[in-house]
Amino acid sequence: MAIQAAIFGASGYTGQELIRILSGHPQVNLVAVTSRRYAGRPATEIYPSLSGMTTLTYSNATPQEISNLCDVAFLALPHGVSMDIVPVFINAGRQVIDLSADYRLRDLAVYEKWYAKHSSADLFGQAVYGLPELYRNEIKQARLIANPGCYPTSIILGLAPVLKNKLVDVSTIIADSASGVSGAGRDPQVTSLFCEVDGGFKAYKVGKHRHTPEIEQELNRLAGADFAITFTPHLLPVKRGILSTVYATLKTDITLSDLHAMYASFYEGEKFIRICPEGTYPNISSVCGSNYCDIGLALDSRTKRIIIISAIDNLVKGAAGQAIQNMNIICSLSEDSGLNVPPLYP
Amino acid sequence: MAIQAAIFGASGYTGQELIRILSGHPQVNLVAVTSRRYAGRPATEIYPSLSGMTTLTYSNATPQEISNLCDVAFLALPHGVSMDIVPVFINAGRQVIDLSADYRLRDLAVYEKWYAKHSSADLFGQAVYGLPELYRNEIKQARLIANPGCYPTSIILGLAPVLKNKLVDVSTIIADSASGVSGAGRDPQVTSLFCEVDGGFKAYKVGKHRHTPEIEQELNRLAGADFAITFTPHLLPVKRGILSTVYATLKTDITLSDLHAMYASFYEGEKFIRICPEGTYPNISSVCGSNYCDIGLALDSRTKRIIIISAIDNLVKGAAGQAIQNMNIICSLSEDSGLNVPPLYP
Amino acid sequence: MAIQAAIFGASGYTGQELIRILSGHPQVNLVAVTSRRYAGRPATEIYPSLSGMTTLTYSNATPQEISNLCDVAFLALPHGVSMDIVPVFINAGRQVIDLSADYRLRDLAVYEKWYAKHSSADLFGQAVYGLPELYRNEIKQARLIANPGCYPTSIILGLAPVLKNKLVDVSTIIADSASGVSGAGRDPQVTSLFCEVDGGFKAYKVGKHRHTPEIEQELNRLAGADFAITFTPHLLPVKRGILSTVYATLKTDITLSDLHAMYASFYEGEKFIRICPEGTYPNISSVCGSNYCDIGLALDSRTKRIIIISAIDNLVKGAAGQAIQNMNIICSLSEDSGLNVPPLYP
Amino acid sequence: MAIQAAIFGASGYTGQELIRILSGHPQVNLVAVTSRRYAGRPATEIYPSLSGMTTLTYSNATPQEISNLCDVAFLALPHGVSMDIVPVFINAGRQVIDLSADYRLRDLAVYEKWYAKHSSADLFGQAVYGLPELYRNEIKQARLIANPGCYPTSIILGLAPVLKNKLVDVSTIIADSASGVSGAGRDPQVTSLFCEVDGGFKAYKVGKHRHTPEIEQELNRLAGADFAITFTPHLLPVKRGILSTVYATLKTDITLSDLHAMYASFYEGEKFIRICPEGTYPNISSVCGSNYCDIGLALDSRTKRIIIISAIDNLVKGAAGQAIQNMNIICSLSEDSGLNVPPLYP
Repeated sequence: MAIQAAIFGASGYTGQELIRILSGHPQVNLVAVTSRRYAGRPATEIYPSLSGMTTLTYSNATPQEISNLCDVAFLALPHGVSMDIVPVFINAGRQVIDLSADYRLRDLAVYEKWYAKHSSADLFGQAVYGLPELYRNEIKQARLIANPGCYPTSIILGLAPVLKNKLVDVSTIIADSASGVSGAGRDPQVTSLFCEVDGGFKAYKVGKHRHTPEIEQELNRLAGADFAITFTPHLLPVKRGILSTVYATLKTDITLSDLHAMYASFYEGEKFIRICPEGTYPNISSVCGSNYCDIGLALDSRTKRIIIISAIDNLVKGAAGQAIQNMNIICSLSEDSGLNVPPLYP
Repeated sequence: MAIQAAIFGASGYTGQELIRILSGHPQVNLVAVTSRRYAGRPATEIYPSLSGMTTLTYSNATPQEISNLCDVAFLALPHGVSMDIVPVFINAGRQVIDLSADYRLRDLAVYEKWYAKHSSADLFGQAVYGLPELYRNEIKQARLIANPGCYPTSIILGLAPVLKNKLVDVSTIIADSASGVSGAGRDPQVTSLFCEVDGGFKAYKVGKHRHTPEIEQELNRLAGADFAITFTPHLLPVKRGILSTVYATLKTDITLSDLHAMYASFYEGEKFIRICPEGTYPNISSVCGSNYCDIGLALDSRTKRIIIISAIDNLVKGAAGQAIQNMNIICSLSEDSGLNVPPLYP
Repeated sequence: MAIQAAIFGASGYTGQELIRILSGHPQVNLVAVTSRRYAGRPATEIYPSLSGMTTLTYSNATPQEISNLCDVAFLALPHGVSMDIVPVFINAGRQVIDLSADYRLRDLAVYEKWYAKHSSADLFGQAVYGLPELYRNEIKQARLIANPGCYPTSIILGLAPVLKNKLVDVSTIIADSASGVSGAGRDPQVTSLFCEVDGGFKAYKVGKHRHTPEIEQELNRLAGADFAITFTPHLLPVKRGILSTVYATLKTDITLSDLHAMYASFYEGEKFIRICPEGTYPNISSVCGSNYCDIGLALDSRTKRIIIISAIDNLVKGAAGQAIQNMNIICSLSEDSGLNVPPLYP
Repeated sequence: MAIQAAIFGASGYTGQELIRILSGHPQVNLVAVTSRRYAGRPATEIYPSLSGMTTLTYSNATPQEISNLCDVAFLALPHGVSMDIVPVFINAGRQVIDLSADYRLRDLAVYEKWYAKHSSADLFGQAVYGLPELYRNEIKQARLIANPGCYPTSIILGLAPVLKNKLVDVSTIIADSASGVSGAGRDPQVTSLFCEVDGGFKAYKVGKHRHTPEIEQELNRLAGADFAITFTPHLLPVKRGILSTVYATLKTDITLSDLHAMYASFYEGEKFIRICPEGTYPNISSVCGSNYCDIGLALDSRTKRIIIISAIDNLVKGAAGQAIQNMNIICSLSEDSGLNVPPLYP
């Protein structure tokens, strides 16, 4: 029997992407999509690309009303808003996959320092961080999934094997990342205008991006140590994609071939992780539209550094795709159901 | 039982697109891909995006050898080359879908005027023009499909209803089209370089493009009349997509609402044709990665002209997708098998 | 002695472009730039590219206050706003170059039909349409210049020679144009977002664009006849540039070589008009950043049509550059002063 | 009296850029441009953007012949080719600005390790590294200028103040850079095709780029120490621009305000260096088309790192503009002559 799914806050790019992927999911029936801004208008009016894929109309139903319709709820809301809606679905006994930042951190104080006062702090500790490659077993039992941020997904997946294997000096980690513009959402703002972005490239929120504590939380757990990293996000003139180039100093010598073997072993059986052949590096256009995370590896023997490069589509593995991967796990479906789609290249 | 398919000439963008779509086709087993340039190298080395989708290695096997492996052969070769290869597959009893221009025209003299001397003129008359929305019944019986050109697909589908209904003065037809760069293929040439294309927009081959006789052939048949059109292709700074804006003077008055009804009726049941709601027009980004042809309609009452705007993805409905749609028909599969994929937006 | 210039409404792309060009103009001293939104902030804070070029701060001074500072005022305001400001400058005896649509039309009823009620109708008839290649003598005497629209500039310059020479059937004119996104301004709106534009191409306001009466007004004057045209604007995924592909049926035979001679003769001595060599067509990237209008010509002998293709930078020849060209004329400076800058290619 | 200048190897993007800038240089007369590929064809046929700017035709004259025509020669040739041509001009008594890598290194062994056997090793030691902000006095006396590489220019200018002031632990320097596609030149190659680049972002030549020894040579001199850095170049889907994000660990505490003061002081009077206001960072689109190097500064107090971000236009400050800046110096012209042009934004 099909799973009844709903999307609360479905008019932004992440919401659209959930509709797009779920419309092709063989075991899911998408029953409701909400949007205050577009309530009463067909989703295909806002996204003509979806014509023929869905006949749903944006609703402004309450969380309570939506919870009556669905088994699983995806929340694609801004942080600070989600925390007020999630409890309704949880209390109604629904499984929730929250794509905001509201439940990703494990330490409430850290959340409230980087974000805002939390209105459902009691639920805070019950969420499972929805990175399947690291927390698959916990996800299976979860009723509230905190879907990871896009930058964190790319950086954590890139670093996990070397941290678990204690290969690097954790005080030397630098993550230099670049994201496509869809990461900034669909709200009209000057900095996301075509004329401001095209032909440009810049760093932003240097040393201040809110994904920093989320990244550190998971890297610290992987390494079993407490440390800070430097994380610099940049804005790319592309629609989709995140590339993270991560640097760290090696504590012990390793050959590139052994490093590749370590990654292959760590991610063995992982459907959505692709390790690039030696000497090749990922390109965001090679994962575009897919749930893949491509990882490339290099050693700079002159400086004893490892360079790990990972690429994801920020709207798929960095948001909607990973959310559906999580749904597949908690609903005991094949983990790649609905996600077994090749990247769109060129 | 799965259909055994092969692609002869599979290293260009159209070949890659065939691999991409066929890798997700539930009833097809892709058994061979050939490339002289990349013989011996895995397809995923040339197209890392395909990693995990295919394990095939480019072969330089002969047409005869490939014909022994497959039920259906896709030929993604330049015109002038295809005409030498097609006969081998046909003589071996295989069904052939030829994506070159070599068998699209019905008049050999026209072919030889616009292209070159034809080396398999005997087969020329046996090919079926593979535009399913117009020739579905003929395609069912065909052994050689001439897969339509990208510009022709967009223009013919846009004009078919008004020509069949004799609504316009055929001497007034102007097709102003714009194509993404993938239409120029993957051969390295200065005019396809990023720096030459990005930020640019230009017309090319004005009044001389080889798709002109193909377009006219089909428009003439639809109208039952002999006439020429003006066709102006432009190069867009995008990877995929063709938008054709077609102008014609009305012979009789019609309301926009009746015009929409005419198109809805003409394309009733057509899975891959989407008529845009009144007052809205297609965008190539709304069909990107899909087999859809979106059509928008306008009337310029001040000048008694109809304006028909159609959008396709040149690599899908304009090439590989339509080829697979044709294969589905000749193999008695569901016509949208493997093609039921939402466009990738944004 | 330097001309004292001011820009009223200088925070949009056209305003920025006026600052950019005027900052390099050897005979102009830019004394004030206004912006309600950014009042009190240095222009370089909004446009860091201008750093080192200007030290001006956006002011919210009144038109009266600004008129006390300057000899010439550029108004880069939305239509409907400009009509309330222009009279202040005119009454103060300043020369005004208005970049809005408020004074471009000669027939008040047409203005009020396509735009809105006019608040300074008395000044309406005194404005000179600021297309120097056609109205240089009138511009010399003007105190109020209505700077032409971007689409009209490209289409009128393209068609002027054939209309003056009565070469075409005016009832057959179709202008198919495409513009970069800067034409939509810097106000944040969903349709101008990078993710909505990049990779896309679409027609908009089909048969309804407000530039239509402006284009027809000037074409009718050139031809000495009363007729309507079909004009279809499209949105290009580029920052700058307009390409217009214009079609008309020839009334008399002409060779391409004679056509080129006609254009060369018509535009003889015009610094900013470049006729492309026979068989070549303009590209918007070849005029980017410059005040040039490039024009290419083709004859479609099969259909007896002429195809005229013109390219401009919408922010330069289509707005700020032409405004400064007009200022040069009314101030008796060399017409290309400050504008003698090569296009930026690639 | 005007300086007679020639460009040897003028058909690539750097050559074109030299023509573009020199065509507007008030004290230079460009007398010859050479190209084997395009010999006999007007430069404007290859670059229509230059129409009206130059009437020169590409010549295939020998270096000896060209040296008879000019005072100063710009060589825009591939490394390995330049070393054979430079001696001819030097022996003829001409001043040479070589834009290849052939004379940039001070240690012949290093050159021959990273590049190839050097054919004019005797001249090798006589070249001056043409970074005016560091070597202005040496440049004034030079007859052979080795124009710096694009990546090195951005990284060296960014790091010079902190190295001179011994502010950082030099063993921790990591330079993460991204370049527009024009850096790869105009030769047709698959990796520079629009469809391969647009929508993409990737690292390349990780740990192996030939600019590494050039960067280290200059950084070592600035610091007075011998050390290696990690340098990772990436390919951006833009035409022009390099952004370098450089990381280093601080040896001593410093406030951001003091850091800004240090940079302001170090670059005082430098026309082409712009330090971004505190809290703001450079964007390559804000230097596009100009000779500026914009530098932004951040401190990551959590990790004691400094983050220096610099932006240049790779074809201007990274190549042709800097070459002309060098020419201005050796010819005793105003250093910004011909280069005093605002960036083109948007």
